[in-house]
Amino acid sequence: MSASVILPDLATQVVVPVAAAVGIAFAVLQWFLVSQVKVTGDGGSAGKGGASESLIEEEEGLNDHNVVVKCAEIQTAISEGATSFLYTEYKYAGGFMTVFAVLIFVFLGSIEGFSTKSQPCHYSVGKTCKPALANAAFSTIAFVLGAVTSLVSGFLGMKIATYANARTTLEARKGVGKAFIVAFRSGAVMGFLLAASGLFVLYIIINLFGIYYGDDWEGLFEAITGYGLGGSSMALFGRVGGGIYTKAADVGADLVGKVERNIPEDDPRNPAVIADNVGDNVGDIAGMGSDLFGSYAESSCAALVVASISSFGINHEFTPMMFPLLISSVGIIACLITTLFATDFFEVKAVDQIEPALKKQLIISTAVMTVGIALVSWLGLPYTFTIFNFGAQKTVHSWQLFLCVAVGLWAGLVIGFITEYYTSNAYSPVQDVADSCRTGAATNVIFGLALGYKSVIIPIFAIAFSIFLSFSLAAMYGVAVAALGMLSTIATGLAIDAYGPISDNAGGIAEMAGMSHRIRERTDALDAAGNTTAAIGKGFAIGSAALVSLALFGAFVSRAGITTVDVLTPNVFIGLLVGAMLPYWFSAMTMKSVGSAALKMVEEVRRQFNTIPGLMEGTAKPDYATCVKISTDASIKEMIPPGALVMLTPLIVGTFFGVETLSGVLAGALVSGVQIAISASNTGGAWDNAKKYIEAGVSDHAKSLGPKGSDCHKAAVIGDTIGDPLKDTSGPSLNILIKLMAVESLVFAPFFATYGGILFKYI
Amino acid sequence: MSASVILPDLATQVVVPVAAAVGIAFAVLQWFLVSQVKVTGDGGSAGKGGASESLIEEEEGLNDHNVVVKCAEIQTAISEGATSFLYTEYKYAGGFMTVFAVLIFVFLGSIEGFSTKSQPCHYSVGKTCKPALANAAFSTIAFVLGAVTSLVSGFLGMKIATYANARTTLEARKGVGKAFIVAFRSGAVMGFLLAASGLFVLYIIINLFGIYYGDDWEGLFEAITGYGLGGSSMALFGRVGGGIYTKAADVGADLVGKVERNIPEDDPRNPAVIADNVGDNVGDIAGMGSDLFGSYAESSCAALVVASISSFGINHEFTPMMFPLLISSVGIIACLITTLFATDFFEVKAVDQIEPALKKQLIISTAVMTVGIALVSWLGLPYTFTIFNFGAQKTVHSWQLFLCVAVGLWAGLVIGFITEYYTSNAYSPVQDVADSCRTGAATNVIFGLALGYKSVIIPIFAIAFSIFLSFSLAAMYGVAVAALGMLSTIATGLAIDAYGPISDNAGGIAEMAGMSHRIRERTDALDAAGNTTAAIGKGFAIGSAALVSLALFGAFVSRAGITTVDVLTPNVFIGLLVGAMLPYWFSAMTMKSVGSAALKMVEEVRRQFNTIPGLMEGTAKPDYATCVKISTDASIKEMIPPGALVMLTPLIVGTFFGVETLSGVLAGALVSGVQIAISASNTGGAWDNAKKYIEAGVSDHAKSLGPKGSDCHKAAVIGDTIGDPLKDTSGPSLNILIKLMAVESLVFAPFFATYGGILFKYI
Repeated sequence: MSASVILPDLATQVVVPVAAAVGIAFAVLQWFLVSQVKVTGDGGSAGKGGASESLIEEEEGLNDHNVVVKCAEIQTAISEGATSFLYTEYKYAGGFMTVFAVLIFVFLGSIEGFSTKSQPCHYSVGKTCKPALANAAFSTIAFVLGAVTSLVSGFLGMKIATYANARTTLEARKGVGKAFIVAFRSGAVMGFLLAASGLFVLYIIINLFGIYYGDDWEGLFEAITGYGLGGSSMALFGRVGGGIYTKAADVGADLVGKVERNIPEDDPRNPAVIADNVGDNVGDIAGMGSDLFGSYAESSCAALVVASISSFGINHEFTPMMFPLLISSVGIIACLITTLFATDFFEVKAVDQIEPALKKQLIISTAVMTVGIALVSWLGLPYTFTIFNFGAQKTVHSWQLFLCVAVGLWAGLVIGFITEYYTSNAYSPVQDVADSCRTGAATNVIFGLALGYKSVIIPIFAIAFSIFLSFSLAAMYGVAVAALGMLSTIATGLAIDAYGPISDNAGGIAEMAGMSHRIRERTDALDAAGNTTAAIGKGFAIGSAALVSLALFGAFVSRAGITTVDVLTPNVFIGLLVGAMLPYWFSAMTMKSVGSAALKMVEEVRRQFNTIPGLMEGTAKPDYATCVKISTDASIKEMIPPGALVMLTPLIVGTFFGVETLSGVLAGALVSGVQIAISASNTGGAWDNAKKYIEAGVSDHAKSLGPKGSDCHKAAVIGDTIGDPLKDTSGPSLNILIKLMAVESLVFAPFFATYGGILFKYI
Repeated sequence: MSASVILPDLATQVVVPVAAAVGIAFAVLQWFLVSQVKVTGDGGSAGKGGASESLIEEEEGLNDHNVVVKCAEIQTAISEGATSFLYTEYKYAGGFMTVFAVLIFVFLGSIEGFSTKSQPCHYSVGKTCKPALANAAFSTIAFVLGAVTSLVSGFLGMKIATYANARTTLEARKGVGKAFIVAFRSGAVMGFLLAASGLFVLYIIINLFGIYYGDDWEGLFEAITGYGLGGSSMALFGRVGGGIYTKAADVGADLVGKVERNIPEDDPRNPAVIADNVGDNVGDIAGMGSDLFGSYAESSCAALVVASISSFGINHEFTPMMFPLLISSVGIIACLITTLFATDFFEVKAVDQIEPALKKQLIISTAVMTVGIALVSWLGLPYTFTIFNFGAQKTVHSWQLFLCVAVGLWAGLVIGFITEYYTSNAYSPVQDVADSCRTGAATNVIFGLALGYKSVIIPIFAIAFSIFLSFSLAAMYGVAVAALGMLSTIATGLAIDAYGPISDNAGGIAEMAGMSHRIRERTDALDAAGNTTAAIGKGFAIGSAALVSLALFGAFVSRAGITTVDVLTPNVFIGLLVGAMLPYWFSAMTMKSVGSAALKMVEEVRRQFNTIPGLMEGTAKPDYATCVKISTDASIKEMIPPGALVMLTPLIVGTFFGVETLSGVLAGALVSGVQIAISASNTGGAWDNAKKYIEAGVSDHAKSLGPKGSDCHKAAVIGDTIGDPLKDTSGPSLNILIKLMAVESLVFAPFFATYGGILFKYI
């Protein structure tokens, strides 16, 4: 096996941290540019380029000082609400982390009876590896670092989002192009910060842990998997907790505001309106960010742990070993170039250019990244090497690994566009759903559910094709790098994703600040484009989650020393069956959670309308803070049962039923969960956009269904409300279910392999 | 291996046909008793026991001759509609059968190049077996016989149901007890006829084919599997076609009648009302019957084919070989005893005794059958024998096989009662769903979906436990006999199931004939109990389908010569992923089909209301026949795409991607499909009963939500309409998907094993 790699190890040691530093610097630069828009009311607004630029649209309301003050007030309320939720969430997350860190240490440390003696290696025959106690300690540290990185990135992302929302509103006075740039730049801050800091911390801990581990790469990268578990555990809080929060507030606000009191969305008289806007930030920004960060950390860890027992690890080839990090490094640069296309090379001048501009981001980043992958595969890999394949070593060529990464990247794009087709109201599927509202809410729901089911077909074929190709070419390492390929453009993906809730908030602020109808129209246009890209982002998150959890599953199986997972054994089969049931159990919990939390919100909003005199007339201010508190408390409380289901299942199954049954459970949850996740997200997205289609009334067909308040529109609103928990809570939360169970199994694999399956041992 | 079986072979040759004959005779007797109620209007009514019995309830309207004439008219219309649908369906089914029979013959015959020479056996080393061409011919004959048996049983079941509906209505004049007995006896006709004729035909073809096959039991029982495929193919028409029919008519009738025209259900002015009542018969009676008949035939075939390559088959032990048929024989006797408890030993005297009487049937049949199984296991099996276990032979004791059958039987009961808990409005889950209607249709749908997801948990654990036990004890033979155990009380199960639609029809006829409110109340009570038992029946059908398809899957894998189905290979994993997607694809198709067919019905009903003068006023009669024709044509047309998906998938995957990938697809479809099937059925059942709960207004809580026409009730009606296709079309149709793909794979296994996977061979 030759190790003739073009890129020297020293260069790799430079390229990775530099790329991470560039990413962070770029994020800071974007933040600075956004901060040039003033909302404190002490001056005018001075966007990038100053007043010299000629705008196609008319500027309006620029000199209304009151509006700026009002925007600043609302922004502060939202920001405070979001911060308060995140602090509460972090308090519980901190407690959970402490307990779980202890658990990891005790479980993993117990394997060799807490012995501090070195042990024989598992895969490098005849060599000695570091003691299990060391692996326990370093896994625990990696876990904490992963969790903290996720928390900090999510927090900063939320901060910039709540910092940018009012700025977007104010820029919308100058035109839709200006507003777009502010919202998009803010999204980019989140995207680059998360991608770069994730890479940076991973790079640092590999080097720091390496000082202790020395030549024991097997132990080193096993310990590193804790990083993925840490990142993913926080995603549980972000996605599930945040998802419950956002939809409890949204559904609660709508049920009283729109239905009972007949006041419009985002009306400042609605006591839950601030909670609703806070929800967008904690759910869609912090939640989505932590989800994708988890995927990123997990796929990197899965690739590294498989590589460590392949020729890269056995022969100590540093540059090829760092291939996953090199991919991410190039990804940051590719996304940086892509961002410039949105903010500098082109300019959004009209409403109908927004969506194409965002979609161009996806295409450009994918195209640029394909070149980047080819480059890294050529420079960073030997032409021939071997990859561990469940007991055997498989020979792989560098161009084959290029194909693995590229197929993941392009499958992500395919999933994105199919998702768009099924959820955007520019195409027939959503228009058919809107049309079915003619015969009432029931047919709307039937058609919407059918649409969601149907939308699963092509994404599953895309994922299956990627898996087949990468699995056939490079076993589980191939699947892991395919996942990394899909996630390599994460900075751009997150920028687009975060753009949506920021625009949504901007619209809410415009409404609450009483700004003119024209400005509201501009923010609505930004928001509509954001809705479609949000659906694309979700499809992307689910697709990558499927690949990531298969890679983690493969790493778990390798680490647990299993060479086959045979469906024709009772253990595996019942694992498969019960695993396929878990997404249903989990969804039942999360949907019920949203329902219960929303009902609490409904009671509070009703109470305020009934007890605060002058609230409906707009003469008295509602008590926003209580609603924020109710959403916060309810979401934290309600996330405990689904969270426990996810965290305890691998521990219980592994300990009592053993690694074969656990393999079945993981595979079953994966193949079943991905379907529900996709269909739930798309059904919800389609209902949302069917409603918007009727409201906007752009075509003759749409006009025949509307206007707002017609029977058709009412039926569409019912669909939209049902879709809320599906698309923003239960659907995306399933990503966490399938990933977190897999990474937890991987981290605890040494324990299960040693002590697992006690039920079968003693019966 | 000793073969000391207590029951001599000759006794087995007597017991099986005699049990079948007893079953058929009992069915004829029940039919005769039902026929004693006259509807031709030429005399009074003379129920069993004459007028000497004292009834607690008052008799009323007995002498109104007009009512009898009207009932006879309506009954004729329903019967003609149902017959016309079934004839149309059978025309298409006949065409399909012919084509598929040719396909089976050509595919299986081609294996040895249509050679008429004997070939070496697969499992009995050194022996010669009959040529592949003979297997092809006999498989084809078995296929046709299975299909015809299913058709004839379904047809007769439908005939007795449409014969009994008006008789039930008329008996309701004398009291609820009398009406109950008529409806229940009619259900029993269907149940016993189907169970006994299925057993009888199977017994006959084993003996007839045996004349040719002689000692080649391996070939004999391979050919017999065609019987299962035939039965199951017709179930595709019955369940999917019938399911689309019934819900197209129901939803179509409701959307115009209840929503637009504001006339009550079953109002004779509604042109779709006859089609709606026809639908109950073709969907719930013929469809359910063909589904369960398919399960019964398939599980018998799966058990037989595995036994033929186990010690029973290798040593030619006839009585143990016939163990599956002995189980069914005892089952008929056990169900016969059970039936007497409902019709002779006890009497239903009041409305609140109906549901307990039906539930007692389930418990009694299970208890009696447990003794029966013990008896058969003791008399019909050697104490020790071996069972084929994917390449190896596994030693099994007779008491272990008893446990396998018994665990299936009792798991069926558990699933039944859990289903009842989640779908009956006597318990909190449905009451919670009803309560959620306070905040509108959206929360109703969210809570209903969550309930369906949650209701999956315990049934899956029950199925998983049965599989684990039977699989561990006796490999795939154990799973097959567990399925047979669950289906051993099929006669009682079907009697209860068929009772529901008959009562539903009886209520419709009472309404249409303008009978008094009190009679309608009695039929409503019968119907309400029938709703719950229908849900139990569906749970039961799904549970048995899961066991059956696993057994078929095992038989397929054995026949295809695979010894492991390893998730850690790309072929199997992508099969699993794509297989788990198929139920979604299939459900999207069936739901859309109901939607499209219902819209056609809506147009026709609207047309009649608009063009027939005096229709709304009740002075003119609607054109029922056109509605029946529309439902018939639409359902036949709409079942083609989902039918093609089911029938083509195994052929395409097996031929192009090979048996490993096909194994993955089957396992994936099984573990994913069973979840959607259970959740869809229960969600639909819960919505239906939540609506009924509000309408009935029995408790204070229910009264606070009602009455009919309140906002809560309207929200509940929306849920009910959404639930219709879920619980009666897409949910139960999934049984067919998972079973039919498995049995088709089994029949074509020799072909796939020889020629399959051409895509991988040439790439």
